[in-house]
Amino acid sequence: MKVQGKDFRTIWRKPNSKSVFLIDQRHLPFEFVIEEIKNVDEMCTAIAEMHVRGAGLIGASAAYGMALAAEQGIKEADFEVHLRKAGEKLKATRPTAVNLAFGVESMLETIRPGDGNEENAKRITEAAERFANADADMCRQIGLYGSKIIEDIHTLNPGRPVNVLTHCNAGWLAFVDYGSALAPVYEAHRRGIPVHVWVDETRPRNQGSKLTAWELAMEGVPHTVIVDNTGGHLMQHGMVDICIVGSDRTTRTGDVANKIGTYLKALAAHDNNVPFYAAMPSSTIDWNLRDGIKEIPIEERNQDEVLCFDGMSEHGRTQVKISPEESKAANFGFDVTPARLVSGMITERGVTKANEESILEKFPERR
Amino acid sequence: MKVQGKDFRTIWRKPNSKSVFLIDQRHLPFEFVIEEIKNVDEMCTAIAEMHVRGAGLIGASAAYGMALAAEQGIKEADFEVHLRKAGEKLKATRPTAVNLAFGVESMLETIRPGDGNEENAKRITEAAERFANADADMCRQIGLYGSKIIEDIHTLNPGRPVNVLTHCNAGWLAFVDYGSALAPVYEAHRRGIPVHVWVDETRPRNQGSKLTAWELAMEGVPHTVIVDNTGGHLMQHGMVDICIVGSDRTTRTGDVANKIGTYLKALAAHDNNVPFYAAMPSSTIDWNLRDGIKEIPIEERNQDEVLCFDGMSEHGRTQVKISPEESKAANFGFDVTPARLVSGMITERGVTKANEESILEKFPERR
Repeated sequence: MKVQGKDFRTIWRKPNSKSVFLIDQRHLPFEFVIEEIKNVDEMCTAIAEMHVRGAGLIGASAAYGMALAAEQGIKEADFEVHLRKAGEKLKATRPTAVNLAFGVESMLETIRPGDGNEENAKRITEAAERFANADADMCRQIGLYGSKIIEDIHTLNPGRPVNVLTHCNAGWLAFVDYGSALAPVYEAHRRGIPVHVWVDETRPRNQGSKLTAWELAMEGVPHTVIVDNTGGHLMQHGMVDICIVGSDRTTRTGDVANKIGTYLKALAAHDNNVPFYAAMPSSTIDWNLRDGIKEIPIEERNQDEVLCFDGMSEHGRTQVKISPEESKAANFGFDVTPARLVSGMITERGVTKANEESILEKFPERR
Repeated sequence: MKVQGKDFRTIWRKPNSKSVFLIDQRHLPFEFVIEEIKNVDEMCTAIAEMHVRGAGLIGASAAYGMALAAEQGIKEADFEVHLRKAGEKLKATRPTAVNLAFGVESMLETIRPGDGNEENAKRITEAAERFANADADMCRQIGLYGSKIIEDIHTLNPGRPVNVLTHCNAGWLAFVDYGSALAPVYEAHRRGIPVHVWVDETRPRNQGSKLTAWELAMEGVPHTVIVDNTGGHLMQHGMVDICIVGSDRTTRTGDVANKIGTYLKALAAHDNNVPFYAAMPSSTIDWNLRDGIKEIPIEERNQDEVLCFDGMSEHGRTQVKISPEESKAANFGFDVTPARLVSGMITERGVTKANEESILEKFPERR
């Protein structure tokens, strides 16, 4: 997607370079910083410290991290053990993200024990590239399917923009390109359907006001930033036509684990008959899980993300403390929206209802 | 309540002083600043720019502001017109707060047209003091009634603290003393019932992490700050026993207008069978209103409160920007929680259900 008019992905390789390049998203929206990642340890740091974040991008970062480990491990006596160790390191960086394991395992599967290290490394390098391309392709498909839902709303209410509410960042910055929740918005915008996006700021890390707002601004999509508390009021007053959020992990029954606070918006949507969609490539579906609330582990992060706030001041990038010295905080990263509150799931194979039967119609190989 | 071990109210007069004194809450929790208010214009600024805020305190500030106007208007040819003008100014400072009008009107009602200006001014001075005392007394009653609900929960679950979730600041800083939502917590704590409070930070102005956390810390009540997105997850996992919030305006049917985001917590409480109480002195009940969502005007505030964030940095008090230059924001101050989501109302006359019949049983004079 566009950054100051120029096309970018969130992560990429260059011909004749041994490194991986990525947008260090910690600096957005204030600075556009490209980081060069030289080895798997740097990739682990980039994932753990959220230079990169978002379901799809974490998966691609893991795949590219495995490629670096493979390319640099050609002289290892036990190449597969070396790679499995790298994979374990990568998987340990963020406990909730199922895509992390998917990226690692997909690379490990390409190893042929009979082949030499160099040959296997080359195979993993190519597989990582295919993995990233597949992520972008899936998101493009999500955009095509999801934009029809927006188009239908516009057809029923012509003459005014379709108001979309989104939480966190499930735009192209969360994937390799296009995004999940925002892909339908971009596709609708491209087709000339007027859209306006309510952007939840998404405390504590403000991926909404920092990343989603920046993405939308760069693509010229009208949008308004709101605090996370506002969505219910907007829905009570008919100011939201549709909610579209992403998913960090989805059960085969349609429960959706996404950024903390998603569940509250789903409740408000349900209470006000606003359709609530979760958009995700099927790689975020964990086919082993049936009960999201009981089975999906929720990452607890550092309390300073809650007690402090980070932005740009007259002194440059500054962290401000917003609570008394005596107070502690709890910082749960995600919550689970039960399938009963989800109107539909927008996947790369089309839109399904949030129940096992409907999901399996699109993914019969998972029966 | 206690500030570093010493008893304070939020607003008070001193013998032999023509001023009113108040805690300038904009500096909390970083600095404890007492402001001297010399006239009604300074009081208007203090209310409009939120040196003072919260339903009860706004009412008392308006009453004390009228007292200042009266004392300084003794030489006015038309004393009553002078006071009505002062009252209009005060009422215009915050459009949603019903207590503002209540404070002003209560003072105007004490004027006896036959009496001299000096006599009327003296009467208003005394009425303002009584008004402030009545606010504190009502909150103390709320504490007595509400603490029984906490005690009952503790009796059913002995051996662990009662987990209370609150939104915004409806503690003593929002009133003259004691508070509404927090009065039951303080009373329970005083009686030795173990309580722990989940403190919603309450974006955009963070009255939770700044004021509620500070109040609780000063009184030694265990508490944990959370972002506004977290409450749903906590309730899904049995980590909240009861929600208690305040109210800025309540209909005679039990709809509750309170800080933006309250409605989302009420939805989550309802979805998880967690009791959801609104605590308020009956002065916040607007007896003319029946439909909160349709009838209560919602204040829209400056978008910079959303686009920026204010706290303490190494450079002292600092404002940081958290969104791209290109993005705009919307800033609705309140939302309305429909009565169907409210388990009960804790008033100075006891606990009622959130419906007209039950409310009128406690307030039969409003039939």
